[in-house]
Amino acid sequence: MHKKTRDMLGRQGLTRVDEAWEVLLSHLRTATPPTETVPLASALDRITARPIMSPENLPAHARSTMDGYAVQAADTFGATESMPGYLRITGDVAMGEQPTFQIERGTCARIATGGLLPSGTDAVIMLEHTVPIDETMIEVVKAVGVGTNLIAPGEDIGKGSPALPAGHRLRPQDLGLLAGLGIDRVEVYHRLSVGILSTGDEIVPYTATPPPGKIRDINGITLSGLITRAGAKATLYGIVSDRKDRFFPAAEKAVLENDIVLFSGGSSVGMRDLGEQAISSLGKPGILVHGVALKPGKPIIIGLTGTTPIFGLPGHPVSAMVCFDFFVEPTIRHLSGLRVPETLPRPVITARLGRNINSAPGRRDLIRVQLSRAETGWVAEPVLGKSGAITTLSRAHGFFLIDEDSQGLTKDTEVKVTLYL
Amino acid sequence: MHKKTRDMLGRQGLTRVDEAWEVLLSHLRTATPPTETVPLASALDRITARPIMSPENLPAHARSTMDGYAVQAADTFGATESMPGYLRITGDVAMGEQPTFQIERGTCARIATGGLLPSGTDAVIMLEHTVPIDETMIEVVKAVGVGTNLIAPGEDIGKGSPALPAGHRLRPQDLGLLAGLGIDRVEVYHRLSVGILSTGDEIVPYTATPPPGKIRDINGITLSGLITRAGAKATLYGIVSDRKDRFFPAAEKAVLENDIVLFSGGSSVGMRDLGEQAISSLGKPGILVHGVALKPGKPIIIGLTGTTPIFGLPGHPVSAMVCFDFFVEPTIRHLSGLRVPETLPRPVITARLGRNINSAPGRRDLIRVQLSRAETGWVAEPVLGKSGAITTLSRAHGFFLIDEDSQGLTKDTEVKVTLYL
Repeated sequence: MHKKTRDMLGRQGLTRVDEAWEVLLSHLRTATPPTETVPLASALDRITARPIMSPENLPAHARSTMDGYAVQAADTFGATESMPGYLRITGDVAMGEQPTFQIERGTCARIATGGLLPSGTDAVIMLEHTVPIDETMIEVVKAVGVGTNLIAPGEDIGKGSPALPAGHRLRPQDLGLLAGLGIDRVEVYHRLSVGILSTGDEIVPYTATPPPGKIRDINGITLSGLITRAGAKATLYGIVSDRKDRFFPAAEKAVLENDIVLFSGGSSVGMRDLGEQAISSLGKPGILVHGVALKPGKPIIIGLTGTTPIFGLPGHPVSAMVCFDFFVEPTIRHLSGLRVPETLPRPVITARLGRNINSAPGRRDLIRVQLSRAETGWVAEPVLGKSGAITTLSRAHGFFLIDEDSQGLTKDTEVKVTLYL
Repeated sequence: MHKKTRDMLGRQGLTRVDEAWEVLLSHLRTATPPTETVPLASALDRITARPIMSPENLPAHARSTMDGYAVQAADTFGATESMPGYLRITGDVAMGEQPTFQIERGTCARIATGGLLPSGTDAVIMLEHTVPIDETMIEVVKAVGVGTNLIAPGEDIGKGSPALPAGHRLRPQDLGLLAGLGIDRVEVYHRLSVGILSTGDEIVPYTATPPPGKIRDINGITLSGLITRAGAKATLYGIVSDRKDRFFPAAEKAVLENDIVLFSGGSSVGMRDLGEQAISSLGKPGILVHGVALKPGKPIIIGLTGTTPIFGLPGHPVSAMVCFDFFVEPTIRHLSGLRVPETLPRPVITARLGRNINSAPGRRDLIRVQLSRAETGWVAEPVLGKSGAITTLSRAHGFFLIDEDSQGLTKDTEVKVTLYL
């Protein structure tokens, strides 16, 4: 049994947010997502399935990192402004070509940044540290050591050295790195698919004009967008009647066809019961969590059928979105194979609270805020709205949390706001 | 003439970053991107072309925001725990149905959250503030005023009121709001297309094995990914020879077919000249900025042909990426029609610098860093790498800036790190 808290009226045990996530995670920990190999050009934002090692030394040959002259370092020994050395120019390194000539003692070759060092040279002297005498001779006014102003073979990355870890989301710059190493196909985890069943006989498609008492389906398209942004594929199963003989087969089909399934719209007691029954009937282990100490988002049901997580999300759009951020998005992230080091920061803004705000102890509150700029920094003004109001859905710039052990925060308290981007 | 700064050797005038951007922006300010109308289901992350007004009152009818009883507020006047009022239950509001009955004085109807108020009622009393006597009678232990626990018609949003502004990127929650209002098509700005010409005879496709002296094209795929993430379409024109008779026609084709064109790979003096000549020959106004006081990123060329911005980006991948972040991404954002209020924050992390770092006055330095967690907070360790090293490309977690008036920062200075996500 997990530690339970009671709601305001003490009517029901609720699971704490962290524990609810731990319970779910304990069932997902061993999941190993399938992999596929894709061309590099299609790999943006995909997750690497294995560590990627460099197949070669980079650079393959020593290259100059400056515009100047390729030299034998020993020839510059002791050179200063007052006691310059002299070198004869016997070659020009053409960009993109391997020099075919040899540099002997007392001679040098013109070289640009990126040029390959000719044989016989072991350093580059910067243009700025030379004085031209004529077309074939320079004064060297500074000594350079072996290896100066060049990048040695394998110095950037050695053959067999790790280029990228497994479980890493491929950003544009990572694709660039792999292209530089000549890796044109990459093994990635498959893209998760998430099925959405909007339920409830009071819900009509948003393309319809709802008769009195009915409302348009808001959660289908909102969840679909959140899923897309989380890097998964959303499949909408439309609005399914809350009659058992319609709902159960649709839920079963969605479980067969997806990695994760969301039921949306079941906030009424009858709908909650139906969602619970469906999760239980679909297979073991069934319901894992039934209500969390989170506001908004309390009525969430979390279940598992085989290895497929099923979430019964509250019907209220703001609550559904909060439950998505707290439970569904981390589940997608976990099952996607992404392994973000715990040490990486999330983008947050520090702001001062614009008013006092209360919170019930034992419950985690998510406070959605609008941000504005004051002289002293950001001010976070809570976005309040009556239950069922939908305009508040899109009005917030981000949110902050009030933890279970707090009874609220006073105006001007510093809060960490996570931004909705 | 813009204020110019000199580089370390005083050889060349460089434009300050802010001024370079202002010069470009002054030419883009009047640009009005074309629009198109798309179904809501395809509108995620698109930019609204006009303010969107609500076509109806929401809710259309008064709804309960609590589970309880719909009442006439006057019937609860003076009710307390010690002096309860009594009401007879004469109806049940079915979810999703318009109640057809009338509530008279002294009676009430059961109602759930979201239920429509029956005619004759003007408030809802919460279940918790009632005590059941029997199946047909309740005690009311608290008075409610008119309008309590309900959302009035048009209270969420009134017909004709603004729902979303123009120039707004449609997030999942915005699609939800529009769905709730029954708006199933939306006018958005067209998606920008950006053409990329990789140039330079030392560049080979990343799928090829480069002969000695040649290097693989890294910038094509990196820029392509950055463009995709910025919400535009990338079109790769492949690697174009730096011979004038090849390069000029290819550049002209790219300008005709795209909203923005990037030349990548021209960091050598010869390539810079070619890029400049191409920009000048393509049409007025031609070259706007030629080198900025930014490190890395100094050799960027910014031009304009008619209304099409052209960027000559440095060949070095890190420099190309920095120039993208500083100039190309803001240009995409501007031409996309996005109008983000200046008052909105960017996601940054405060960290302490892990070592001293020097900077030349008059130049803006972008310092790429790796972040690690210390007891006192985040530590930002500069990612250093020789010119031409490509592994540093993907090693940074983010960057911070050292402004033109600074000569450097000492260890432990607080810096604001913008994250690479």
